[in-house]
Amino acid sequence: MSSQIRRLSSAQSDFKAQFRALLAYEEQRDPHVESAVADIIHAVRTKGDEALLEYTKRFDRVDVSDAAALEIPKDELKRAFDSLDDSLRASLETAAQRVRAFHERQVAESWEYTEADGTRLGQRVTPLDRAGLYVPGGKAAYPSSVLMNAVPAKVAGVQEVIMVVPTPSGVRNPIVLAAAWLAGVDRVFTVGGAQAVAALAYGTDTIPRVDKIVGPGNAYVAEAKRRVFGAVGIDMIAGPSEILIICDGKTDADWIAMDLFSQAEHDEMAQSILLCPDAAFLDQVQASIKRLMDTMPRATVIATSLKNRGALIQVKDLDEACALSNEIAPEHLELSVQDPDAWVGKLRHAGAIFMGPYSSESLGDYCAGPNHVLPTAGTARFSSPLGVYDFQKRSSLIFASRDGARVLGEVAAELAYGEGLPAHARSAEYRVGPKFRKNQE
Amino acid sequence: MSSQIRRLSSAQSDFKAQFRALLAYEEQRDPHVESAVADIIHAVRTKGDEALLEYTKRFDRVDVSDAAALEIPKDELKRAFDSLDDSLRASLETAAQRVRAFHERQVAESWEYTEADGTRLGQRVTPLDRAGLYVPGGKAAYPSSVLMNAVPAKVAGVQEVIMVVPTPSGVRNPIVLAAAWLAGVDRVFTVGGAQAVAALAYGTDTIPRVDKIVGPGNAYVAEAKRRVFGAVGIDMIAGPSEILIICDGKTDADWIAMDLFSQAEHDEMAQSILLCPDAAFLDQVQASIKRLMDTMPRATVIATSLKNRGALIQVKDLDEACALSNEIAPEHLELSVQDPDAWVGKLRHAGAIFMGPYSSESLGDYCAGPNHVLPTAGTARFSSPLGVYDFQKRSSLIFASRDGARVLGEVAAELAYGEGLPAHARSAEYRVGPKFRKNQE
Repeated sequence: MSSQIRRLSSAQSDFKAQFRALLAYEEQRDPHVESAVADIIHAVRTKGDEALLEYTKRFDRVDVSDAAALEIPKDELKRAFDSLDDSLRASLETAAQRVRAFHERQVAESWEYTEADGTRLGQRVTPLDRAGLYVPGGKAAYPSSVLMNAVPAKVAGVQEVIMVVPTPSGVRNPIVLAAAWLAGVDRVFTVGGAQAVAALAYGTDTIPRVDKIVGPGNAYVAEAKRRVFGAVGIDMIAGPSEILIICDGKTDADWIAMDLFSQAEHDEMAQSILLCPDAAFLDQVQASIKRLMDTMPRATVIATSLKNRGALIQVKDLDEACALSNEIAPEHLELSVQDPDAWVGKLRHAGAIFMGPYSSESLGDYCAGPNHVLPTAGTARFSSPLGVYDFQKRSSLIFASRDGARVLGEVAAELAYGEGLPAHARSAEYRVGPKFRKNQE
Repeated sequence: MSSQIRRLSSAQSDFKAQFRALLAYEEQRDPHVESAVADIIHAVRTKGDEALLEYTKRFDRVDVSDAAALEIPKDELKRAFDSLDDSLRASLETAAQRVRAFHERQVAESWEYTEADGTRLGQRVTPLDRAGLYVPGGKAAYPSSVLMNAVPAKVAGVQEVIMVVPTPSGVRNPIVLAAAWLAGVDRVFTVGGAQAVAALAYGTDTIPRVDKIVGPGNAYVAEAKRRVFGAVGIDMIAGPSEILIICDGKTDADWIAMDLFSQAEHDEMAQSILLCPDAAFLDQVQASIKRLMDTMPRATVIATSLKNRGALIQVKDLDEACALSNEIAPEHLELSVQDPDAWVGKLRHAGAIFMGPYSSESLGDYCAGPNHVLPTAGTARFSSPLGVYDFQKRSSLIFASRDGARVLGEVAAELAYGEGLPAHARSAEYRVGPKFRKNQE
């Protein structure tokens, strides 16, 4: 297998252009997918369960006459969990417990304060009523993803978490079902694709309408989420997964090579980049890549990903590495250096930062505790890991006392007249009291 | 002027259908706008300032040859502020100070915890580097909107807030510029439309690229924000503004009528609904509407809005009013009752809740403190008022100690093998140490 990977140096005269070309990623939207998804959503909105059954038969080869048969009963989830191999079950439990412990710290609380005149202001934080969790079927069916999406929702206090998962030809993934049971998912339906997203967004007789849809999916699912957004909340639309490793050259080169592989094995578009000031270490990592490649079961995917989108980049120093990292705003950032605390403050944007040589990304993917759903493609500049905050919402509370309204009413009226909104002004003036009114009717 | 407004009662047999029809709102997207905006964005991305100047000349009739002339210097902002009428300036200052005080309570702090084996986990909260604020020109130029968008960004710690505001035929709104100065906006450019959004999203030689774009705009601006999302963060795409008033019949009917007007005067699509169990009070409000209508400068807009989208609805009791409100998830919710604290707990979804007869929505629009940018069209089911949290982002921090990595590595490897991701597993196993490794190369 090829172990080709781009080598760059920030000292090259054309480095900026090379670096930009390496990072260039623009999501391609397929007009065929867009129109197919529009049709599917329209059908599910207008024909409900009937359309859902038809698409499930057509796309998943699951033919049931009654939509109720699409639901997996809770005891089947429990049975799946109970039947797991002991060691796998224990690992899943450890992961769930750690993810829950971390996310419990994210719960936002309501607050309120009272001013001298009795006016009270506050922010009330409440969970969403109902969340939908999309879980892909087939190859990319990841139990860890069920935990990472469902646990924050339950920690937030969401009453009902509805999971949808396609079961092509009726094949169910018992580990996914076990994870659903462990995470506290309330109901599971064996539907997928754009039709499942439409059902969650608008509701059918069988599938309840949710307030937000989260979870990964293929191009049809992503397009469907984009289209139903507004009727329902959605999480981010993820791009290909990426890792950026900043290494001081002191970590075992095999470890770094394997960390690059672990990202590359996701798919051909995944991106793995290493920044290091030590050219000799980059050579070692390249040698490790060459030596380890053929031991990897997913070598074909890894080789393609490294060849097309990977890079080993020699930088001037770790300061420059941090500056380049801030330009990338990576999804996963390994700070594989001896003294990560000395450098972490220079990193302004990243989904998750893995500090020190022992913190491989894979620990975070499964069980460290923080979420593995992270902002991709530079969106860490403005967005955050999936968290409890994605399943809570805020309402402002305003209680103007009689005295408070006199003061606020005059200010509001002045500004409203300034903006040419006289009904706003008069509504405020009523609260000031007749003698304060500027305009009497 | 007509003072027609729909009367409904929850006791009617067809109430559910009537209620649903009243609320039905689906954003219409215009293919002409979509393609025009796509062209504008493409031009600004590829030709930068040149395209920006050309569009500004064509759409705003502002013809400058040097893009630098599009910037309004900071001292002009200060002069605008200093030249305000004393009373208006004082009102603007009070509003800014109150908005700032409220939003300071929204600042999220970083946190971290250490486990027994030395593993550290945390969440780092940092501000966005740079935010863009779109301010409409012409009629809808609202200084209050400048405060509501810019203050949270500055409270969050955003280093640079870039404001864009079109100045059709070169006319600048001094109150808007004064508000920008007061809110601490860093730079102001006189550009607007899709071209301004594109410039903020991708940067030009003159206008710096931002990380997130907030602020209201017309259909072109909304479509442009939708298209650049991903390259940059955006706030919500707002639908028409709405108010729902729940009244026990004890508030002055004129006050309630004027509160309905204050929403209706925004535009013909704005929605004003009153829920009250007291039919006689609904009659009084209807009489107030009739009497007050002709005194309103914006009576034409108000009458159209009330006729097409307004309603006075008799409910069985306040419990039913709360249940209906939860179905609507209103942007603005006035709980105009004698004892609002007894009822507020039953209201699950709303952008802002105005409690008691003195808390008119208009107080919140200008100066109570909470933000006036609120989720519309039922999106309060899953989203929140604009806030400091929209200008902060989180990064997860994971520092696995050597001992911690042994435990986590075994769990991660087990789960990774279960998901068919062997490079993930081996990357974790490296951190466990050779003797623990399941698969030796």
